[in-house]
Amino acid sequence: MRDSAADPALELWPARVVVDGAAHELPDPVVVEEPLEIQVGGQPLVVTMRTPGHDRELAAGWLFGEGLIETREDLLALVDGAAAGRANVVDVRLRDERAVAAARAARGFLSASACGVCGKTAIEHVFARGLPALPGGRPQVARAWLEGLPARMRAAQPLFARTGGLHAAALFAAGGELAVLREDVGRHNAVDKLVGERLLAGARLDDAVLLLSGRAGFEIVQKAARAGIALVAAMGAPSSLALRVAERSGMTLVGFLRPGRFNLYTGSGRIEP
Amino acid sequence: MRDSAADPALELWPARVVVDGAAHELPDPVVVEEPLEIQVGGQPLVVTMRTPGHDRELAAGWLFGEGLIETREDLLALVDGAAAGRANVVDVRLRDERAVAAARAARGFLSASACGVCGKTAIEHVFARGLPALPGGRPQVARAWLEGLPARMRAAQPLFARTGGLHAAALFAAGGELAVLREDVGRHNAVDKLVGERLLAGARLDDAVLLLSGRAGFEIVQKAARAGIALVAAMGAPSSLALRVAERSGMTLVGFLRPGRFNLYTGSGRIEP
Repeated sequence: MRDSAADPALELWPARVVVDGAAHELPDPVVVEEPLEIQVGGQPLVVTMRTPGHDRELAAGWLFGEGLIETREDLLALVDGAAAGRANVVDVRLRDERAVAAARAARGFLSASACGVCGKTAIEHVFARGLPALPGGRPQVARAWLEGLPARMRAAQPLFARTGGLHAAALFAAGGELAVLREDVGRHNAVDKLVGERLLAGARLDDAVLLLSGRAGFEIVQKAARAGIALVAAMGAPSSLALRVAERSGMTLVGFLRPGRFNLYTGSGRIEP
Repeated sequence: MRDSAADPALELWPARVVVDGAAHELPDPVVVEEPLEIQVGGQPLVVTMRTPGHDRELAAGWLFGEGLIETREDLLALVDGAAAGRANVVDVRLRDERAVAAARAARGFLSASACGVCGKTAIEHVFARGLPALPGGRPQVARAWLEGLPARMRAAQPLFARTGGLHAAALFAAGGELAVLREDVGRHNAVDKLVGERLLAGARLDDAVLLLSGRAGFEIVQKAARAGIALVAAMGAPSSLALRVAERSGMTLVGFLRPGRFNLYTGSGRIEP
């Protein structure tokens, strides 16, 4: 039962809500999960499970995260197939498709954004792509400002309130306002959409702060580092490999962020007491 | 800083815990995330990011979930490389490696367990592998028993309490005891480890109930259906595609499970009021 008048990211499912043994038939809003195929020049490159919406941003952010594009000028075309009756397909044309050809030849990119090391066929490749060294000392934010971010994200998070289960990621200008927020069934997709949005807008991320509604895993932190985001704060826990990536790239990584309390794991110079 | 005397799934990181602006230097236990490479006959097949431990089970469960093995007899060998100084590698030998060869040729399995449709290069393939029809009417469980499962899982969940952030999955005998519980940084891995453990033990899953600490997404439900698990209960939300898979396979899918309350989305015949 698709609630077509509403958000395409939500679907109403005829659930039976059982409270103390009494059953109530109620349509329950659930988050939509569907495959998105990213094509390059009409040829399939990758399929990722995602929540529909902002698919062009997702494609742009994913390509950037994989190192297949560096700027928006590298994207000659970025077409959402939905307008042409090809739902769940985004077709891109790249200025230089040699990297894609090489990736296809190496069988290295039949992967999904849910797994940053998908398609790597040897463990030593995990770190092989290299990480940018983030500039030290910036951004600078006040502790009280940082601790206030979760409440501001929740206030701006329309889907979570209705479905009870979505990953959110938000970019804030350091010390300032919410720039962009994305929600997705896949936490990596939410970050790809953010990064893609900023890329397509031609915005820089030097002074951006990334807030994650959940945990900070390896791929998320890797994506943030590649995008040049030097301050990442998660409301959940980090993983060991995420901390190693953050440390190596010079990132400030905060976990368990809430009012009055957080854990600072790496990069202590960016938060003023 | 590895807490080598303790669980290999945990690592102590020198964190700065900031409480009301006062910093305390404390080693914080974080969950270990490392790549595991599954090899077939010494050749790399897939890399997945996982929490170390139960790696043979993970490999067996992943291969089963991908349809590359059907029984434990299909596994001629299953070697954890750690004993031979090759950490983070599991090498398997299969009775019939033609499927793997075909998969390699189709470039279809350079994927990770984090994404069940990884490597599928067209959307129509998502459902193409087919789903088993689960037997109706079983297992049968009482509502009160079902509602008591989250507390029982938490009580048996050693890592979550220390790291604050891990996915858990547990198999219970219908109406009875906890059979096996696994925790992992990747929710799919936790399910693969469960399924692999049961496969290696030669146990059937007809009367098993799967409990998930978080959300029920497409790939998780697909893995459960393939393993023959007819009753899946999540403490979090389901996705639209997960519900579609559950409905099509005849699975009972419960979401938002807690004492005195749950949502029943599909397959109403297995829970007695």
